[in-house]
Amino acid sequence: MKLLKETLDQITSSNQEIRKETKEKWDSLLKPIGSLGKLEEISIKYSAITGSVSNKIEKKAIVVMAADNGVVEAGVSNCPQDFTLVLANAMIKGTTGLATLGKFVGADIYTVDLGMIGDGDEGIINKKISSGTNNFLKGPAMTRDQCIRAIEVGIEIGDSLYNSAYDILGTGELGIGNTTTSAAVFTSLTGIDVGITCGKGAGITEAQYENKKDTIIRGIEINKIDRTDPIDVVAKVGGYDIAGICGLYLSAAKNKKPIVMDGFISSTAGLVAMKLKEEVKDYMFPSHLSKEPGAKVLAETLGLEPMLNMDMRLGEGSGCPLAFQLIETALFTLDNMGTYQGESISSEGLVDLREEK
Amino acid sequence: MKLLKETLDQITSSNQEIRKETKEKWDSLLKPIGSLGKLEEISIKYSAITGSVSNKIEKKAIVVMAADNGVVEAGVSNCPQDFTLVLANAMIKGTTGLATLGKFVGADIYTVDLGMIGDGDEGIINKKISSGTNNFLKGPAMTRDQCIRAIEVGIEIGDSLYNSAYDILGTGELGIGNTTTSAAVFTSLTGIDVGITCGKGAGITEAQYENKKDTIIRGIEINKIDRTDPIDVVAKVGGYDIAGICGLYLSAAKNKKPIVMDGFISSTAGLVAMKLKEEVKDYMFPSHLSKEPGAKVLAETLGLEPMLNMDMRLGEGSGCPLAFQLIETALFTLDNMGTYQGESISSEGLVDLREEK
Repeated sequence: MKLLKETLDQITSSNQEIRKETKEKWDSLLKPIGSLGKLEEISIKYSAITGSVSNKIEKKAIVVMAADNGVVEAGVSNCPQDFTLVLANAMIKGTTGLATLGKFVGADIYTVDLGMIGDGDEGIINKKISSGTNNFLKGPAMTRDQCIRAIEVGIEIGDSLYNSAYDILGTGELGIGNTTTSAAVFTSLTGIDVGITCGKGAGITEAQYENKKDTIIRGIEINKIDRTDPIDVVAKVGGYDIAGICGLYLSAAKNKKPIVMDGFISSTAGLVAMKLKEEVKDYMFPSHLSKEPGAKVLAETLGLEPMLNMDMRLGEGSGCPLAFQLIETALFTLDNMGTYQGESISSEGLVDLREEK
Repeated sequence: MKLLKETLDQITSSNQEIRKETKEKWDSLLKPIGSLGKLEEISIKYSAITGSVSNKIEKKAIVVMAADNGVVEAGVSNCPQDFTLVLANAMIKGTTGLATLGKFVGADIYTVDLGMIGDGDEGIINKKISSGTNNFLKGPAMTRDQCIRAIEVGIEIGDSLYNSAYDILGTGELGIGNTTTSAAVFTSLTGIDVGITCGKGAGITEAQYENKKDTIIRGIEINKIDRTDPIDVVAKVGGYDIAGICGLYLSAAKNKKPIVMDGFISSTAGLVAMKLKEEVKDYMFPSHLSKEPGAKVLAETLGLEPMLNMDMRLGEGSGCPLAFQLIETALFTLDNMGTYQGESISSEGLVDLREEK
């Protein structure tokens, strides 16, 4: 509790002076003002985070929070629960989708056991809080203390990586049933109907979908959730993965370092972090628009428009490596493009081209 | 004319057998079926083009077609016409947005003078057909022969680069006034209203916007365009850049090699190529959704949904380097991800996970 409180106290907005300076540098480059769109916005946001106009990413990693969800016993997923562990072990072996994408872009992957049922192979960081959460239809998924502990593990891991010279982190997860817990948290925090926040997924029948929505509605009712208290929400109907990722965001903001969101689960954790401290948003980069149906509404709720439209729904953190590529491209472009001055373009022409191509 | 005809005759669909084989390989990988979305689709399309399940990009380039448009004298752009030449020279120096993005991803840039007013610096490939086109309010922008010649230059350059071991090309352009010519071609070929195909751009007044739309409508009327003949359309209200890029697409399809579209102008040229030979579509990869207002409708018309949502409106070919990164990521992922078999996952679990995560 002490670490969480201290962390929240230390978080402030990003540097608006440097934001302005970086915008001015973009406007001096050989192109109509704003014409590189999100590449410009990304770099401006990045500069405001680090406090430096010029930036380069030397070391990057994605942290995968793995945990099991008790609510799986309500039949919300077709997938056997032990696949959380199977995939965590595959992550260490480097055979998953995220591990492969990470290898291609040169990002390290750290897999954290926050509460899997069963122990994973060597290489998984063991921070197990309990062997899965409880079924939230029978009471809170976890205690308030367990929830705070999971957030603090996220903060500790984030702090440790940013202090080990990682310039940027991405957030990922493994946990069968976590689209259900995420939809429950998303609906609890916003009041948005489960018909929107809860997805049908692939291969789920109409009856299973009705059961999934009903499970979420009952879970929220039974546990008498305090919607104004994000920790109460995550403790009662969330999961350790959501809490842990929330901690990573808080660490990023505290350390004034950038962090990338992946899809639906990771964005739900982002919403929790923003509810705890609004300024965290300054440090978060969206990546792709997940194909999970609630993702679009969630992106709008966060006010963070994804840069990629890849129809992906793998999870794991798989949008982060793709976003890293775009962020690195943006940083390089600001540092290396020519200026109007360098081209000795007359000021009349300059004004015109800057206004419109 | 001979080269164009021969090229069109040689174009056939991509390899549907290999498409199927590549899809099967994706479905054997450790993830729910289809969950990597467009990364899977990109690699499947790529394999069908090359006829090989496994692919790697060793050499890549973006070809920038530069040309001036006579219709600029109708006041359709705020930008001085000599900026086409200024930017072509900057392209060779490596100071433009595209040149910088290309440098970051390791793509070569070739700038071709298809019809600029004035001669560019050394390094620009001189294929000038005439010193700009004619103002299409006073008659056809170019003769039918000039239009075919511009397409054939595109084919020749594409052929030459693909034969020089380039695995993939991207398409770019420079030409003040080319959003006007593109909108004119787009409207002519589809009948879609100029209110949709013609953008306001930045810094253009309401009166200027009305003039731009009116210019397009009058150009189409005055020149008695045959909407069913793509060459007639481009010759009368298009530009050399559109024709040259069209030739690049045809070359890609003939050589069974992939090619990337950029934004509005490049996509208009793609529409022309598809009207000349439908099968060309099999070889074309979209990149980003340009902020040019007609871009969304154009992407829908082409049936090619962009992978990137970057709010860019620079042109030049600037979406291509970003698309190259995603395509290379897709190819690597197919070749390097683990399989279900490799993880020794039981067939019951396998079926379940493949259906839904």
